[in-house]
This record gives sequence, structure tokens and C-alpha cells, in this order.
Amino acid sequence: MPSQRVNIDESPLFWPARLQNGVLEVLDETLIPSRVKFIRVRTTRESVKVIREMKTRAFGQLLVVLNTFLLLFKNKKGMSERILLREIQKMAEKLNASRPTFPFSEVTGRVVAWAQTAFDNGDDISNVVSQRIRGYLEQIRIRRLGRVRRLAGVIKNGDSVLTHCNVSGELAMAAALCRKNKKRVQFFATETRPYFQGAKLTCWELKKVGADVTLITDNAVASVMSDGLVNKVIVGSDRNCANGDFANKIGTYAIAVLAKEFEIPFYVLTQPSRRLKNGRDIPIEFRDPDEILIFRGKRVVPRKVKALYPGFDIIPHQYVTKAIELNVN
Amino acid sequence: MPSQRVNIDESPLFWPARLQNGVLEVLDETLIPSRVKFIRVRTTRESVKVIREMKTRAFGQLLVVLNTFLLLFKNKKGMSERILLREIQKMAEKLNASRPTFPFSEVTGRVVAWAQTAFDNGDDISNVVSQRIRGYLEQIRIRRLGRVRRLAGVIKNGDSVLTHCNVSGELAMAAALCRKNKKRVQFFATETRPYFQGAKLTCWELKKVGADVTLITDNAVASVMSDGLVNKVIVGSDRNCANGDFANKIGTYAIAVLAKEFEIPFYVLTQPSRRLKNGRDIPIEFRDPDEILIFRGKRVVPRKVKALYPGFDIIPHQYVTKAIELNVN
Repeated sequence: MPSQRVNIDESPLFWPARLQNGVLEVLDETLIPSRVKFIRVRTTRESVKVIREMKTRAFGQLLVVLNTFLLLFKNKKGMSERILLREIQKMAEKLNASRPTFPFSEVTGRVVAWAQTAFDNGDDISNVVSQRIRGYLEQIRIRRLGRVRRLAGVIKNGDSVLTHCNVSGELAMAAALCRKNKKRVQFFATETRPYFQGAKLTCWELKKVGADVTLITDNAVASVMSDGLVNKVIVGSDRNCANGDFANKIGTYAIAVLAKEFEIPFYVLTQPSRRLKNGRDIPIEFRDPDEILIFRGKRVVPRKVKALYPGFDIIPHQYVTKAIELNVN
Repeated sequence: MPSQRVNIDESPLFWPARLQNGVLEVLDETLIPSRVKFIRVRTTRESVKVIREMKTRAFGQLLVVLNTFLLLFKNKKGMSERILLREIQKMAEKLNASRPTFPFSEVTGRVVAWAQTAFDNGDDISNVVSQRIRGYLEQIRIRRLGRVRRLAGVIKNGDSVLTHCNVSGELAMAAALCRKNKKRVQFFATETRPYFQGAKLTCWELKKVGADVTLITDNAVASVMSDGLVNKVIVGSDRNCANGDFANKIGTYAIAVLAKEFEIPFYVLTQPSRRLKNGRDIPIEFRDPDEILIFRGKRVVPRKVKALYPGFDIIPHQYVTKAIELNVN
């Protein structure tokens, strides 16, 4: 008899974009926790905009990209197959150029390849690629749910878990599973300047599932670690390399180094890929300095002061205790 | 012939509180860079308030404490010597209780001892202690100016210096000296959440002296270090122990660990004291969680989320490459 599986309630951040009546609805993560509002996206240009302005981020970007192709198929009326293929290729280029660090080209590359094959075989591109995309998304959903279960298994009764930024619903869902399984678990979330994803998203979704969560500033990680307040670190990753190096939100590298210094196991959720050999091959996005210099429309820093805002860290694999991978067959 | 010394222009943060016409004027550091405004302090209660609300901080606290005693002497009319001594003792207790980490009791302890000796000797407490305080402040000024010169000597042509929080004018003044001596130096300042002293104070005073300063978020330190953008760390200290351990603004510990990991020399300005044996003896202030949960009057975090806000880190002496001490004879 198979062991009974507890159902997993999805966090709103687990699947933050979906097609509804021919429109792509994208959760505006910048408004959380004040408002849960969806942005209606109809064009590739609008998709690029929600990504670039970080209305959606991390896994949400993959959803936006794939659904943008589905939008095209809905609106392609009367397009020849040759033109449709060309459109798909052009869309892929635009989406790839939205932000540098996330592996957009790996995602769009699949779609373009599916379309090319359908075209070469004389199949209906729209039908074939739509099915492929839907099947691929369904696979990812199943694999992510599987990763949530494994993540919940990694978290033990009595653990105190430090996390950074936001791992797109999976940590909160694992926390919910732990609660159902009567594990007592504590969480520490870093604010994650400058967008405050930790304060706004992670605290919000952990609180929603009734988890015990404490917010700290990014600069308090050494303090809570040296005081023995956390015994595990769990973070996500935006891009993975063949050798295990990975990119994640700026601040992750410092936490990895501190975890090593204080001998705290460091776990990372990965989507393994062998496209890039190591971290040196990951392009890092440098965002607009105004995102640091200005807060809520007001300049907090004297005029003429420069700012440097790398959006991501590249963390060498040596710091990783264990990767919790997406693809396990 | 003595080598010619370049004059040092004082940063406003070097001496941020002084008596003017019987009132203590305290620079409100929370308004910088928008406004340079002084708070007028007339009573011990008001002194405690500007300290507790962090209108002044670090070295400014010592100035406020010592000048508060001078205020008393100005307003003591008709008090007997015995009552004056008792008043000094009571004031010391109130000032000691303002915040826990800074060594208030070491400062007030001196004043109480001077007053007690004067009383025992039958001297005029007010006269004796006023002179002592003024002399002590003058000594500290001279020693701090000396430390600025030594700090400027530590900074070499071509250096790129990372700093955290604010070292009360000394780093900016050293930067000015370096400029006069034609050294090319770059600075990176961390924001220093949650009060943004790095963004507001350090960037402001470094910019005032024409230094090249770049602001980064607290969580970007590993990024700039691993990219080779900084080759020295210089921070201040709020409390020092006999073994070299020290307390400084939350975030300093992480920077110290990262400096070690990336083999970057880590310098700290100290006011050596042997009162406390090691860092474990330093009481750490935990400030109101609302200072993290609420920003400019607006709650940025979901209700019921807890926050932990240790105001200071205790950094073990092993991480210090070199202390630049205040007291060198």
C-alpha cells in the first residue's frame, strides 16, 4: 500500500501567471503584500515590460515567456506557417533580451526548436507547439511539486531555516507540509534589498501558511548565525551551471560564505543545466542605480553619489552542501 | 625642520554636538542629507531622547553625554555641593540607561569620579569637573585628528576602500587628506539598513570632500569583493574589549568574514579599553522591530510578521588585520 500523501496547497507565488480568456494574467509581485493584483498582458512588448520591471521574477519569468507564445497562437489569424515561424523566432529574440541572467534563451530555444521541427515536418506549428508548451508546463509543475515534497523532507523537526529573497512558493509550500506533518520549524527571512522580496513575498507567503517567520535585515545574517539562531540555509537559484555554480539574488554569496564560516548546511533549489560550464559564463545583470538611490520616489542619497547594483551573485559550487534538483527521474 | 602638515577640515560628523549659549546643539543625523538641522537639548531627558532615537550616534553620543554634565553646571543655581554630586550620579545613571552597547558607563564613570574627588577634596565640583570635561574633550579631539592622519597613511594611492555605516567624520577627513596628497582613492559605502547611515551620512560627507564614492546595498559586499573591486575594508567601532573583540553596527561581522574569505585586509578604528575582557561581555542592543517593519510610516511587511533587529555585531579580534587606535602616545 503506498504511503498516503498529504495534499499540497499552492502558494500564489508558485504559479504566478496564467492564461485566462486569451489574456495572460501576471501577478504583480511588487504590490504584495498590500494588494494581490494581476497585470493583463496581451503582447510580447508587455511581457518584456513585466519582466524588465520585475513585476514578475524568478520562476514567474518562465511562465510569462511560455505563455507569451501561446498568446501569439491565439492571435495569429491568417498567418502563414512560414511567417508564424519567423514571428516565433523574433519573439524569442525579444524575450531573450528582456533581462540577462535568467536563462531565457534556454526556454525560448526549446520553443523555436519545436516550431522549426513542426515546420520541417509540415505539421501545424500552432497546434504542435501549443501542445508541447502545455505538456512542458505540466511536467514542470509536477517536478516542482516533487521538489516541494523533497524540500519538506530536508526540513527536520526543530529546524530554524534562513532564506533569502523568494523561492517562488516552494519554501512556503514545504513549510505547510511540515506543519501538516507536525514538525516545528522556524524561518528567518532576509529583507532582500532593494526590492524587499524577502520582507514582502517570503514573509507574506510563510505567514499565509501559518509558519513562524522572523524578518531580519540583510546585514544581520552573521548575527543570527553566530548566535546559533539558524541551523539551515535554503535558497533558490536563477541559473545553474554544469559544475554546480549558480546565480541567485544578490546577497546569496555572502550568506553562503557565512554558512561555511559558521558551519551551517547550505541548500539550494536548482534547475540543473549543462549549457554553461561554470559561474564565469553567467552574465550578471547590473540594474539601474536609481533603484538603490531612490526609495518610494524620494532620493535617499546625496546627489551625484554613484551606486552599483548587481542584481545577482554567482555562488561557487564549493559552498553548496546539497542541491535539491528539479529534475529527478 | 618639522615636515609641513596639511590642515584637516572637519567633517560636520566629526564633532556633531556642542554647547552654544547655554544650550546643547546636536546635529540631527537622521535628517541628513536632506537637511542640516541641530536639535536644541536642555535637559538630561532630552539628551537621552536624542541618543535613544538615534538622532545622534557613535562618537556623537560621547559628546552629548559630556556636554549634558556641562549643561547641569550652567543651570545648577544655588545647589549645594552634596546635592550637585548626587545630581551628577543620577544623571550618570540615566545616561547609562539610554542605550546598552556604547560604553556610556565608562564615560559617565569618569565624570562621577572627578566629581567625587572634587567633593572629597572640598573643591568646587562645577569648576573642577567642567575643566576636566573640557580638557578631556580637547584631548580626544587631538587624538582623533591624529587618528585621521594615521588613517590617511593607511590608505594608499590606488586603493578602493569599502566601509560600513559611518565612522563619525574620520574616514571622510582622511579621504580629504588623501586628495590633498594626490592619492587616487575610491570608496564603496554600504547602505547600512535599517537607518541608511552609509547611504545618508557616509556618502554625504565623502561627496562633500570630493571623494569618489559608490553606494551598494548591504547584501552586495560579496559581489564587489569577489569581483576585485575593493582592496581594503575600514570600519569604526562602538565598543572595544581587552582582547581586541569589538562591537560595531550590525553588518560589520559579515563584512569581516567576507574580507577574510576574499583575503582583503580589514581595518578598524578603535578606542581601546580593558574594561571588558572579550566580546561575550558586550551587551547587544535589540531595537524596536518596527524600525524594520515600517518604513517612512508605512508597513512594508505583512501584519503579524515578527522582526529581529540587533543593532550591533560583535566581531572577534581574529578577523581584524589591524586596529587603528585612538590612544597612541
